[in-house]
Amino acid sequence: MPDKTVGVALLGCGTVGGGVVNILRDHHDTLLRRTGLDFQLRHVAVKGPEDYPPNAAQLPMTTDANSAIDDPDSHVVIELVGGITVANAFIERALRLGKPVITANKSLLALRGHELFALARQHNTCVAFEASVGGGIPIIDAVLRGLVANRIDAILGIVNGTCNFILTQMTRHAWSYDHALKEAQKQGFAEANPTLDVSGRDAAQKLAILASLAFNVRVAESDIHLEGIDRLQPDDILFAKELGYVIKLLAIAERNPNHSPATAEHSSLSLRVHPTLVHKDDVLADVAGPFNAISIYGHALGHALFYGRGAGRTPTASAVVADLVGVALGATPLTFKQLRTYPDLTPKANVLPFDQLRSRYYIRLMAHDRPGVLAQVTAALGRHAISLSAILQREGRDADHVPVVITTHAANEGAMQAALAEIDALPAIAPPTVCLRIVDPPTEFAAD
Amino acid sequence: MPDKTVGVALLGCGTVGGGVVNILRDHHDTLLRRTGLDFQLRHVAVKGPEDYPPNAAQLPMTTDANSAIDDPDSHVVIELVGGITVANAFIERALRLGKPVITANKSLLALRGHELFALARQHNTCVAFEASVGGGIPIIDAVLRGLVANRIDAILGIVNGTCNFILTQMTRHAWSYDHALKEAQKQGFAEANPTLDVSGRDAAQKLAILASLAFNVRVAESDIHLEGIDRLQPDDILFAKELGYVIKLLAIAERNPNHSPATAEHSSLSLRVHPTLVHKDDVLADVAGPFNAISIYGHALGHALFYGRGAGRTPTASAVVADLVGVALGATPLTFKQLRTYPDLTPKANVLPFDQLRSRYYIRLMAHDRPGVLAQVTAALGRHAISLSAILQREGRDADHVPVVITTHAANEGAMQAALAEIDALPAIAPPTVCLRIVDPPTEFAAD
Repeated sequence: MPDKTVGVALLGCGTVGGGVVNILRDHHDTLLRRTGLDFQLRHVAVKGPEDYPPNAAQLPMTTDANSAIDDPDSHVVIELVGGITVANAFIERALRLGKPVITANKSLLALRGHELFALARQHNTCVAFEASVGGGIPIIDAVLRGLVANRIDAILGIVNGTCNFILTQMTRHAWSYDHALKEAQKQGFAEANPTLDVSGRDAAQKLAILASLAFNVRVAESDIHLEGIDRLQPDDILFAKELGYVIKLLAIAERNPNHSPATAEHSSLSLRVHPTLVHKDDVLADVAGPFNAISIYGHALGHALFYGRGAGRTPTASAVVADLVGVALGATPLTFKQLRTYPDLTPKANVLPFDQLRSRYYIRLMAHDRPGVLAQVTAALGRHAISLSAILQREGRDADHVPVVITTHAANEGAMQAALAEIDALPAIAPPTVCLRIVDPPTEFAAD
Repeated sequence: MPDKTVGVALLGCGTVGGGVVNILRDHHDTLLRRTGLDFQLRHVAVKGPEDYPPNAAQLPMTTDANSAIDDPDSHVVIELVGGITVANAFIERALRLGKPVITANKSLLALRGHELFALARQHNTCVAFEASVGGGIPIIDAVLRGLVANRIDAILGIVNGTCNFILTQMTRHAWSYDHALKEAQKQGFAEANPTLDVSGRDAAQKLAILASLAFNVRVAESDIHLEGIDRLQPDDILFAKELGYVIKLLAIAERNPNHSPATAEHSSLSLRVHPTLVHKDDVLADVAGPFNAISIYGHALGHALFYGRGAGRTPTASAVVADLVGVALGATPLTFKQLRTYPDLTPKANVLPFDQLRSRYYIRLMAHDRPGVLAQVTAALGRHAISLSAILQREGRDADHVPVVITTHAANEGAMQAALAEIDALPAIAPPTVCLRIVDPPTEFAAD
């Protein structure tokens, strides 16, 4: 005897939706035994008959999503149609009826999450969205519940499997970006139009969601400095390796460390997505292929990392169904009326202007191989108070220019950009000089 | 205005208890803002005045734990006294009063968890124990909630920071076990009497808890095959490295793969803690020093890994306070009356007898350097249907014996032990031959 029958309206039945259908069918009895919940799929709504899944005959198909939402026997609504306008309308309709909504729609949440959370609160219900970041990794739960006792100081994530797959292939096989992208497309890890992924936008949307929850403020996608992987050159991956680093596309949200503990809640945030040199001893360096991983630094927990499949049919469906159980048991964080701050993301993030970032840098310049060039370059850096950490000069492959790789100690982004402008104006330099940021491994290894 | 005042009775104020006191003091307002909960420390109970913490004057100290539990203003009881008998009495006393209990006591849970869970259910309350495994890593939450939609097929964990610290030092510096242990003790990562850790018992207790929850059966510590790290030799760490492996103490719980999906819930479990050769590309291979990490394989999620500090004052306190919030909000899994199976661990695990384990093996024998020895060894292996994967023979450092390292394809543990007995009986072999198990990396890398 079930404790409770839970009627489910599923909107959208593509890759992830199909995975949810399978879990609810194949694991119905396991879920019943584990939770006492008898999940019943009441409606599977798609746009038109052309979107019917292969097993449509066995499913309660409809093309009328609104009626599916309105049906009193639909207790929970799962939104997997994607996009902004239509998805938003479905979600708002369900929330206004007081029905909990589960969604994987990171674009919508990054854009309108704060409004949807407020609407949910207003109607005494909730939006659950574990599947929106990190696929099946229970990272939202970790941030909201597992680390609730922590002041979170930093999040560093590999949150886009397409980019990580491409970078892994470029690193392992010394492939060009174009070659690696083609391979990713062939293997199903990149879309025909890969722009959203390789530009870093997808990662920025996920970071906006994570950072909002971690820092209890509203982070917009536009708050995040964005550099993609599409201009990355194999040479830099090789040089980085020689210096002990691996290049990863990291999504980073960091509290400005120049805060006193008392003002930590209001300290400014550095928010950015860019290719990053990660030390080879950092656990993030070993996250290969399509996997995702998110490092979190909490004041009490220290460094923690959550790793797994960040996309795909069944991993994402695993997170959707976990939310379904949480929502049905009333245990999802955003259902807690007591969890007042989380759904209330009205205060906007205090964003550290990107040119005020402090970072270590990797730069590669192409220099005429003649005396005095290095002196000119180091002089330009010195004028902007940037001190060198290492220099690597190789014999050039063409007669004209040789690559010179320089890493720096911590410097100011604005100063670095000014120095780069001067360097690129030198007659002996073939611009543009490549500039990447270095993230050092955590310095934690001591006993308490 | 708080939504709810939560009175806390803290039993025990050592390392972790002191961390809890600090978080409740320093983050009182943050917790109030995030959760609406106003945590008030009502009592801090210790055995005698000699156990008073340095800041005792600022705390509601008592030596009468029973009165602290009984106080109607103590809504939640945190048990951090450790040990079995006294802790058990305190927990039972609180549960019989219907008060939720939070504990980090893995020894007690491994021994009597099923009884305490049943008692909690009977009194309509709960036991929360996130801090009992993996320190601050929210791994219990991940197993019970994040992976609720999964059939869990395997758990492989580095769950003892002391052993991992010792192994990391042995690997990095080619130190002996004794030398690395002394260093760990000096740095505060090992106890004066390290037996519980280095024997693997601590890891086995944690595995008993994790496996019980993952497989919904009762796993006793005595169900788990145990081999510690105290007899590990630096030579084997070096040979393993040459073969592409790192030696880690893994706690492993695996569903016997020879099951049909229909009988998966009743399939036998392989349960073991032993030094293991982990492929260097496996994320577990990079977990260094005192850190812990737990790999979980779910049928839907695939491979996920949870990494962080497995011990220490503030990480463990972070988990205790997360449980405090969960319990106070009624959101801890074991508070759900609907989560019927989890607290009910009456069915005993169907344990695969250790000699029926199938594994790949690493063996190192010390052989007289004369013709025909290798033929005798391979014949012994062949008689037990064990086929070789690789052989590594080095010049010996003494005239008498040279090390011969052999890795095998998957074989039966019983067959391997029988073959080893024959090998050690050969006149040309100096026993005992070292035998370690190899765990191969996940074969997942494909698109769905």
